[in-house]
Amino acid sequence: MKVGFVGLGRMGAGMAANLIKAGHEVTVYNRSPEKTYPLRDQGAKVAKRVSDACDGLVVFTMLADDGAVENAAFGEDGILRHLAKGAVHISSSTISISLSERLAAAHAKAEQGFVAAPVFGRPDAAAAGELLVVAAGGISAIDIASPLFEAIGQKTLVVSDKPVLANLVKLSGNFLIASVIEALGEAMALVGKGGLDLRHYLDILTSIPLFNAPVFKNYGGLIADRKFEPAGFSATLGQKDIRLTLSAAENLRVPMPLASLLRDRFLSLLAQGGERLDWSAIGHLPAKDAGDNR
Amino acid sequence: MKVGFVGLGRMGAGMAANLIKAGHEVTVYNRSPEKTYPLRDQGAKVAKRVSDACDGLVVFTMLADDGAVENAAFGEDGILRHLAKGAVHISSSTISISLSERLAAAHAKAEQGFVAAPVFGRPDAAAAGELLVVAAGGISAIDIASPLFEAIGQKTLVVSDKPVLANLVKLSGNFLIASVIEALGEAMALVGKGGLDLRHYLDILTSIPLFNAPVFKNYGGLIADRKFEPAGFSATLGQKDIRLTLSAAENLRVPMPLASLLRDRFLSLLAQGGERLDWSAIGHLPAKDAGDNR
Amino acid sequence: MKVGFVGLGRMGAGMAANLIKAGHEVTVYNRSPEKTYPLRDQGAKVAKRVSDACDGLVVFTMLADDGAVENAAFGEDGILRHLAKGAVHISSSTISISLSERLAAAHAKAEQGFVAAPVFGRPDAAAAGELLVVAAGGISAIDIASPLFEAIGQKTLVVSDKPVLANLVKLSGNFLIASVIEALGEAMALVGKGGLDLRHYLDILTSIPLFNAPVFKNYGGLIADRKFEPAGFSATLGQKDIRLTLSAAENLRVPMPLASLLRDRFLSLLAQGGERLDWSAIGHLPAKDAGDNR
Amino acid sequence: MKVGFVGLGRMGAGMAANLIKAGHEVTVYNRSPEKTYPLRDQGAKVAKRVSDACDGLVVFTMLADDGAVENAAFGEDGILRHLAKGAVHISSSTISISLSERLAAAHAKAEQGFVAAPVFGRPDAAAAGELLVVAAGGISAIDIASPLFEAIGQKTLVVSDKPVLANLVKLSGNFLIASVIEALGEAMALVGKGGLDLRHYLDILTSIPLFNAPVFKNYGGLIADRKFEPAGFSATLGQKDIRLTLSAAENLRVPMPLASLLRDRFLSLLAQGGERLDWSAIGHLPAKDAGDNR
Repeated sequence: MKVGFVGLGRMGAGMAANLIKAGHEVTVYNRSPEKTYPLRDQGAKVAKRVSDACDGLVVFTMLADDGAVENAAFGEDGILRHLAKGAVHISSSTISISLSERLAAAHAKAEQGFVAAPVFGRPDAAAAGELLVVAAGGISAIDIASPLFEAIGQKTLVVSDKPVLANLVKLSGNFLIASVIEALGEAMALVGKGGLDLRHYLDILTSIPLFNAPVFKNYGGLIADRKFEPAGFSATLGQKDIRLTLSAAENLRVPMPLASLLRDRFLSLLAQGGERLDWSAIGHLPAKDAGDNR
Repeated sequence: MKVGFVGLGRMGAGMAANLIKAGHEVTVYNRSPEKTYPLRDQGAKVAKRVSDACDGLVVFTMLADDGAVENAAFGEDGILRHLAKGAVHISSSTISISLSERLAAAHAKAEQGFVAAPVFGRPDAAAAGELLVVAAGGISAIDIASPLFEAIGQKTLVVSDKPVLANLVKLSGNFLIASVIEALGEAMALVGKGGLDLRHYLDILTSIPLFNAPVFKNYGGLIADRKFEPAGFSATLGQKDIRLTLSAAENLRVPMPLASLLRDRFLSLLAQGGERLDWSAIGHLPAKDAGDNR
Repeated sequence: MKVGFVGLGRMGAGMAANLIKAGHEVTVYNRSPEKTYPLRDQGAKVAKRVSDACDGLVVFTMLADDGAVENAAFGEDGILRHLAKGAVHISSSTISISLSERLAAAHAKAEQGFVAAPVFGRPDAAAAGELLVVAAGGISAIDIASPLFEAIGQKTLVVSDKPVLANLVKLSGNFLIASVIEALGEAMALVGKGGLDLRHYLDILTSIPLFNAPVFKNYGGLIADRKFEPAGFSATLGQKDIRLTLSAAENLRVPMPLASLLRDRFLSLLAQGGERLDWSAIGHLPAKDAGDNR
Repeated sequence: MKVGFVGLGRMGAGMAANLIKAGHEVTVYNRSPEKTYPLRDQGAKVAKRVSDACDGLVVFTMLADDGAVENAAFGEDGILRHLAKGAVHISSSTISISLSERLAAAHAKAEQGFVAAPVFGRPDAAAAGELLVVAAGGISAIDIASPLFEAIGQKTLVVSDKPVLANLVKLSGNFLIASVIEALGEAMALVGKGGLDLRHYLDILTSIPLFNAPVFKNYGGLIADRKFEPAGFSATLGQKDIRLTLSAAENLRVPMPLASLLRDRFLSLLAQGGERLDWSAIGHLPAKDAGDNR
């Protein structure tokens, strides 16, 4: 399949590489061109502008934030103007609910397909083709996208025919992860100050079948070791996702006090210089509040 | 081994039965005597008072709250006065940190062993001998207790030689469960009001390996179905455990804002008549706050 | 002085009337023209569009939200294009920090003056010319504006030469009021459920010199009587102001947990149908959470 | 009137002195005797034990916490055993609701009067006889106590004939003060980081009639100047009062999220070494969370 791919950050680069490996004809675009070189070496065509990546049946966007996706989609040189009727825009970026709704409406009007397909997984999973794809959109667009999802992920979960609901599931998932980080952070501040070794505690905890999931092991380990660099997913991105969650919640009028607590944790972390730390670093704030000055 | 067992509630009855099955010579005591009958039929001796259950090498307590354990331990007719030197009191109740510390000190002074051994698992796991035992105490006392733990549980996790740390681990574990309930409740209020079916959402969520643990599946299912009766673990007990957690945190000067949020959730639930509901019913409060009047 | 006035809502109508009374030559504009009639009867000229209100030395805007102010200022027919060099735009609306900064920059570039002058006081104070004006802007612009502030208010407080700081003070003030409402709501839920009559409680409380301020008496009275209609300041506007406060706090990276709590209170109130109630209605939510179903 | 006075801390010493000045025959008791000397010099009789201060018509207690009051009241040598029938115990300490209820029941059974009469005001107000007395108890007991309240305070507010309600009002009052401290702390963190001088901000704020109360001026001033020593009322005492408030709220099943936030603030402050600071020091924590390291 002829596929465009816009956005070659740490996630996008891995996804595009797996599309090439699966035999698709991939044209990549990235604002700073040096990130296109490795992909070119793997067989990608390199586009000089977004529109040059829009001549296939599908174009992916995997960009940092709403602003970048807005430019790529609505700009003069953007996807809406240059994608063929019937072709599909797959948006894998974590974006706001309102932008997702605007995109769905604009593509429908332009008679183009639109699939929201955010992913779960860190850059290593993207490189290994083991992402989890959470997809929503019209059936025919999903059908077109399916073989591509197989190339980039281990599993595709189809949420709904309303694209925005995939974004909502993605946001809720990141909110749940951050909630577990906060909960572990408070629990570890408590038992740590009580005198228990945190690694030992984590071993005990994850021996309990109830808690036998990677979310407890992985994030608990980072907090126990206070190992927040290098960031797998930065505090800045974590803060962004909680902001998007709260914004969706505000539009739907759903009070989320735990999400509000997480918001304040991320702001604290950023205010104290933690932009480049892993987002799990909020899990050390409860210990700091309890007087741990490490 | 000759073992006493004080407290035959839904958890204690199953534990005592498994001790009998494993061939131990068990004497049971319960304040209301009718709960002793089934155990008698299984081969237990029935004690008329606590002291009559104290003539073995070990005596268990599995009681509802601090007050009940205080009576059984410190009363005129209690364990401290009647247990032999060198014999061991195993306290499996979820009690406060400060009571656990008082018990440890008193038993040490009386030259008796003391093991705090709270358990994870619901009544069905107690009946099946599949509890998870979290134990802490002096090595020789733990040695004595070990075969008994094997009879009641699938696994024993030894925390420390300081009994109180087992209680702290137990409290932190219940706090983590309640935190996941809150997080799921908020996430489901959000995606539910956004238009997604909650069972479908939960299937998607628990397909993500990160969240592939019973704590998400079980509690998420109860919230999705709003099935809060009969209670596996009541809101009243949940409120008690969060109170004990906050009290431990206060003594150690550890601020726990998420635990504070849970405290307020439980008070809300109880104030609105939810005493007899399962503690997962706090997971429906976010939807109520968002206008869901079911 | 020749003055334009854009926005004749409940606040703006009173302010414009007082400018006329003070002898200024006032041209008014309002989107729905029927609100201009009473002002015309008092001697105002009526403008058909915003630009027609921009031919004096000063133009006020007193509009509902960011969107309305953006249109009036940046539109084709807007203030920036039509106000003379050296003339002054006085923005009295409660707007976001970021819009205030954009306005300040745009007016500076257009060589026009810009004063942010939000006000404290309800519609009756606006009608009586007894508002409190919190003003910030360049000295010469403030000088021009001063006699106008005297016409509409009992007092002018000059904050800074940076306009945005007046907006920040206004937001912080509304945040403080809402905080007192929450605090009173919780206190009254407590003493009320304890058995004390709320009016009697409020009399006692405000007899204590420490609490002898209108913010306690006025809002306490509304909560005690559960008298939330008609709204002096609606829950919808309250929610907006807390949103703007949190947004300013996010930009400055200042965690504000109490503001987050207020956010959730307002969302609860709106989700339960409270849009048209006075914002003090959040002060009844603590009692509701405690089981009071009135 | 013949009056006993138990507890000569900073508050009690001033109160007892004013009783002497008003012409009453006062017998004082304090655990560490050196605090009795100044009172003896002013004309007090000095008691060697609590019971020696119980031979008058009234005995005051003004002690640090529940434990001290329990000892003084219920001890072998305590008030209940030694006060005459018909005589009155006036409890001015800030104690828990449950202790106040126990005292009321015990005194009723002993046919003694009991008045809960906590006070508002700092040590200087106690010395000047300008406290605000919040009193509750049976009418005849209040009648007996009234001239004494006149000696120690500027005003007496009679709450109810149920003593516990005076304690509840006192706790709610301290909760309100702490709430204002938190609100001011967050507002000042915001405007301060935005670039406004905090003293200037406070002047503006308290020029607004709505906020024209000492609670804003006094505590705002302490926060603006970060002047938390010497403590007028220590963080330790503040934490105690919020704990008592939350405990009362738990008994009555009233969720109080703002009180929970205050609880966590005080624990943070104490965990970071702030025991001896004024309780208004929690008002600097929002700025610290926002990166202010002063």
